[in-house]
Amino acid sequence: MYIETKKRSLLKGVSWRVFATATTIVIVYLFFGRLDLAVYAGVLETVAKVFLYYMHERAWFKIKFGKKKIDPFNLWFTGLPLSGKTTIANRVYEEIKNSDFPIERLDSKDVRELIPNIGFSKEERNQHLKRVAHLIKTLQNNSISCVASFVSPYQDSRNNIKEMTENYIEVYIKADIESCKIRDYKGIYKRALSGELKNFTGISDVYEEPKKPTIVIDTDKINIEEAVNQIMKYLKQKYLKV
Amino acid sequence: MYIETKKRSLLKGVSWRVFATATTIVIVYLFFGRLDLAVYAGVLETVAKVFLYYMHERAWFKIKFGKKKIDPFNLWFTGLPLSGKTTIANRVYEEIKNSDFPIERLDSKDVRELIPNIGFSKEERNQHLKRVAHLIKTLQNNSISCVASFVSPYQDSRNNIKEMTENYIEVYIKADIESCKIRDYKGIYKRALSGELKNFTGISDVYEEPKKPTIVIDTDKINIEEAVNQIMKYLKQKYLKV
Repeated sequence: MYIETKKRSLLKGVSWRVFATATTIVIVYLFFGRLDLAVYAGVLETVAKVFLYYMHERAWFKIKFGKKKIDPFNLWFTGLPLSGKTTIANRVYEEIKNSDFPIERLDSKDVRELIPNIGFSKEERNQHLKRVAHLIKTLQNNSISCVASFVSPYQDSRNNIKEMTENYIEVYIKADIESCKIRDYKGIYKRALSGELKNFTGISDVYEEPKKPTIVIDTDKINIEEAVNQIMKYLKQKYLKV
Repeated sequence: MYIETKKRSLLKGVSWRVFATATTIVIVYLFFGRLDLAVYAGVLETVAKVFLYYMHERAWFKIKFGKKKIDPFNLWFTGLPLSGKTTIANRVYEEIKNSDFPIERLDSKDVRELIPNIGFSKEERNQHLKRVAHLIKTLQNNSISCVASFVSPYQDSRNNIKEMTENYIEVYIKADIESCKIRDYKGIYKRALSGELKNFTGISDVYEEPKKPTIVIDTDKINIEEAVNQIMKYLKQKYLKV
């Protein structure tokens, strides 16, 4: 979120003047054939108009016409634990951020740290996701888009999030459960299989595959780089265009 | 959060042209004393420069120089239950919103609805306020300021919020506890006095008066209108100036 400083308005005045005056000098010369007078006119014009341009900029700064509110989206990553949601979402977030588009990152882990003592039962997950959706809505009300990564295993809770937020884009990070088990660098699948972790999606709890995801990333077929490109291409076409 | 549409750039080009060309015509006439040629030069200039101005605007739209990030604040209302925090905060929020400044409103009640089952013990209040501060920080990272109203009875938890957020402005809504009891339209003081509500600030729990509030509103001395004006005056001087 930016405001235009006076310095910027002044510099715009100067930069505009350089080639506007050149145009004037050429026009006056074409009409009168006298370069000396054309240059004098140009000099006088320059002095008067840098100041006028500056005033013009400051006046327009207060005028709302033609300023368009940015249309915020909710880029929602869903998939099995360790499917690669967080990694891909982080990369996409960085790319969007670098393009100076207003964006916020929400990951399941960070939000759970903030609101502890939430379990993993269906009811608790849904309550949790409702809060997350509310937070996203608050950000969106202020033109800020979101990159969110949550296992979000139930179709109806994803539907709720779609209802509650604007421009919901569902990215399904598809990964074979066996691949996730092998990838188990956190040792969480092991703990789930031993029964230590309850309600673990994919093991002791269901993951309902998205019915109509906006984008499907099949992590068994494409790498992270390709996944990021595919998502960024979609965003650029629909939301990041200027 | 806005972007500049092409329509806006074009209209700026036209509006600038109107008085820039007038200046050119006057200058050319002063030099050559021939109104007809001055007008022809003006016409030719107009056609060429509306287009050039448009291109100039579009180029500057991509240039970051001189765009200043908005400095977000955290306008924090503290005071006894029913002291008038919410009423005054709502009014101030509306005024800020009308001036098109990016702002969000957080009230104790709304946040408690979102995260239920939080009690009113000192520890629970502090945990709760930490989450609120985190939310405010997230908004501030995106240049959004906050108008927040929370009883927030403890000096050290207010200090925490001050630490965690940017440009903390403490507004102490000072009200005599006896006035609050009389004002008891919600019947909450009555329930607190009967022992039904536990940890009720001012009755069964302490309210630590702010030591160095930025602004003090003495509701026994000034009315809502005056309170809003006093706060807006401060904001305009420090944060809302353009």
